[in-house]
Formats: sequence, C-alpha cells, structure tokens
Amino acid sequence: MDLSDNTIERICKIFGYLHALEKKGVDFVSSKDLAKMVGATEYTIRKDISFLGGPGYTRKGYEVRSFKKELGQRFQLTEKRKACIIGLGRLGTALLDYENFQEDGFEIVAGFDCNVNKIERIRTSIDVFAVSRLAEIVDARNIELGIIAVPAESAQEIADQLAAAGVKGILNFSPVKISVPEGIVHVDMDFTNALRFIAARFVMMKK
Amino acid sequence: MDLSDNTIERICKIFGYLHALEKKGVDFVSSKDLAKMVGATEYTIRKDISFLGGPGYTRKGYEVRSFKKELGQRFQLTEKRKACIIGLGRLGTALLDYENFQEDGFEIVAGFDCNVNKIERIRTSIDVFAVSRLAEIVDARNIELGIIAVPAESAQEIADQLAAAGVKGILNFSPVKISVPEGIVHVDMDFTNALRFIAARFVMMKK
Repeated sequence: MDLSDNTIERICKIFGYLHALEKKGVDFVSSKDLAKMVGATEYTIRKDISFLGGPGYTRKGYEVRSFKKELGQRFQLTEKRKACIIGLGRLGTALLDYENFQEDGFEIVAGFDCNVNKIERIRTSIDVFAVSRLAEIVDARNIELGIIAVPAESAQEIADQLAAAGVKGILNFSPVKISVPEGIVHVDMDFTNALRFIAARFVMMKK
Repeated sequence: MDLSDNTIERICKIFGYLHALEKKGVDFVSSKDLAKMVGATEYTIRKDISFLGGPGYTRKGYEVRSFKKELGQRFQLTEKRKACIIGLGRLGTALLDYENFQEDGFEIVAGFDCNVNKIERIRTSIDVFAVSRLAEIVDARNIELGIIAVPAESAQEIADQLAAAGVKGILNFSPVKISVPEGIVHVDMDFTNALRFIAARFVMMKK
C-alpha cells in the first residue's frame, strides 16, 4: 500500500489522540474533533478513514477503542519497538529517561557516547556503551530505531553507522539534515527551524 | 501575503540550509541540492523561489549569500527574538542551554518552573523565575516566544498563560496538542509521534 508521508503522519497523530482519549475514558470522537487535533480538514480526515476502511461513523462519532485498535493493528503501532540514543549530552540524557517513549511502546534499551568518562559517570537505569560498540549492541538487542543527539558535525557519521548496523529508522535531533540509504526511514527534528517557522509565520500574519 | 504553512516551512528550511552553506564558505547552490535538503521536488523549490521574486538562477546555481540575505529580510529571519522556557525538568534545562538557538538569533532570556526549590538549585547562566511571574517577565523583557517543556497535564494551562501574557508564538514540547487563540502561532513537537511515524512508515514500506 502506498500512502503519502502526510497521510501516515495524520494517521499517527490520530492514533496518539485516540490513545489519549482512551486513557481519559472518552468513548466517542467526532471527525470534527479529530480534524482539529490533527490540523487537517474534516473532509481529509473522513477521506483517510474511508480509504483505510476505518470504522463507520455513528451519530455519536467514531468509537474510540475499536478505532484505535484497528489503526494499531493495521500499522503495527502497538508493537513494542526497541530504540537507542547516541550522544549523551544534556539533550541525549534527557531523552534517555523520557517517560513518554516508554508509555507509547518505544523502549530505550541502550545509550551511546564517544566519551568513555561520561559513560562511567552517567546516572541512569539504561545501559550505556562506548559508541564503538554500536553495531554489536544494535544487533544483539534487536534495536530497530536510532535516536541521534550528537553535535551537528558528527550526525552524518552516526547516521551512517546506524544504517550499517541495520536499524530501520532514525530520529535525528542534531541541527543538520542527515541523508540515509534507501529503505531506512528518517525524520529530522530541528528545534531552531521550528522557532524560525513560528517567527516567519507571525511576520507573514502581520503583512 | 498569504503563504501556506508548507511554503513557509520550506522557506525556513532553505534559509537554515543557506546559513549552513554560508558558514562552510560555499558560494552557489543548485535547485536540485535545495530540493534534496528540503525534501521537496525541484519544481516546487523553483516555483517557491520565483513566486517570492527570488534570485535569478545562474549556471552555477543560486548565489548563497545574496539569496540568504533576501529571504532573511523578507521574512525577518535575521532579527533577534527573545524566548523563554517554561518547565525546567531534564528536557527544559537541556533546552535552556541549547547553543543552536542562540547561534540562530533566538535568545533564551528566562526560564520558569513552578517548583521554587528547583529554581534555587538550578545551575545555568539564564535567569530563572517562579512561573507565577510569567506575565510580568514576558512583558518586562519583550519576550516573543514561549517554549513549553512542562508535563502533559500542565501544558494547556501554560499555553493559556503565555497567550494572555502576549507572546506571539509557542513551541510546545509536551506530548499533548495545545490550542491557542487566533493570532498566535504554535507548533507541537511530539517526539513520540515522530517515532510512531517512523515505525508506521517502515511497516508500510514492507507491504
């Protein structure tokens, strides 16, 4: 099935929202609410759902629990996935213990840094290793996802190492865009660019 | 001028890329390279640039320095902007000293937390305050941007306080979507959702 990145992104947001509603004990959700949460039109949301063969729309809306279950199975969103973090500076160590990953089925099973002193000093419940052991540990622990939190100048090198080690996906927090071989999925999360977008957007609003 | 969010996002990415090229001493860039870095087609990039009345395309490509300058002026991307961070847990304190913000013209001028003991203990060169002083400090220091790093359950309340205090934009790192009044720009950066997208994307690739 060939879905666009935008569609998959919407589906993931819908899943996250359904998950939050389920935890709150909400039973039904309207396509209007879904559209608002996802930042798309109701038409788009309905089209996505009917294309996916999603649940029927009742007068009360979509049934949260069954809808979430269906999306989860279809996109394997409820499977546990193992991830590692490379770069244990302030951001990397903050991510190491980021509770929300765990709660949503992403388990951080290893941290890596090139500074051996740092690895010995660090206080965390997660196992930490020298980055030279990346390939070995990724293989031994069946790690599917790599999270890059190293400085800009090392990011591409780490991405190459992760790709060679066989991860399926990379989330890159370093402030440069990385390139990866075909067949590996990656997302660049550039904080500065997000601020820049916000600033440019409000400049444009004034014009 | 009414530009779509997608267009503005591309422009911000182009600006960031031009900035990086300038620092590396690169003089010209092709629309092909821009397209690759931004994750769009060459056609889209050329259309954006011509729509904006951007620089002419020479045989060597676009001239990096003048192109960056033009985008910067047009979208006021080189202006210094003041920001604050609310929530000084591990992620918040990591962001407090995140060097890349500073380097790109975003100055973090205050941090806030509801825990007064934490404020007294924290080691940073940035001024930190009790969150009860948010409105006062935002006003006194002309803060335009608020960065939310509080737990999910407090995020909306902090967003409301930031909006009331008069910020123009909000970058939300808490794992819930916030809503803001019209006229305020906001971006939700949901780490878990990014991992979910990556996982769903590679599941779809196999199908």
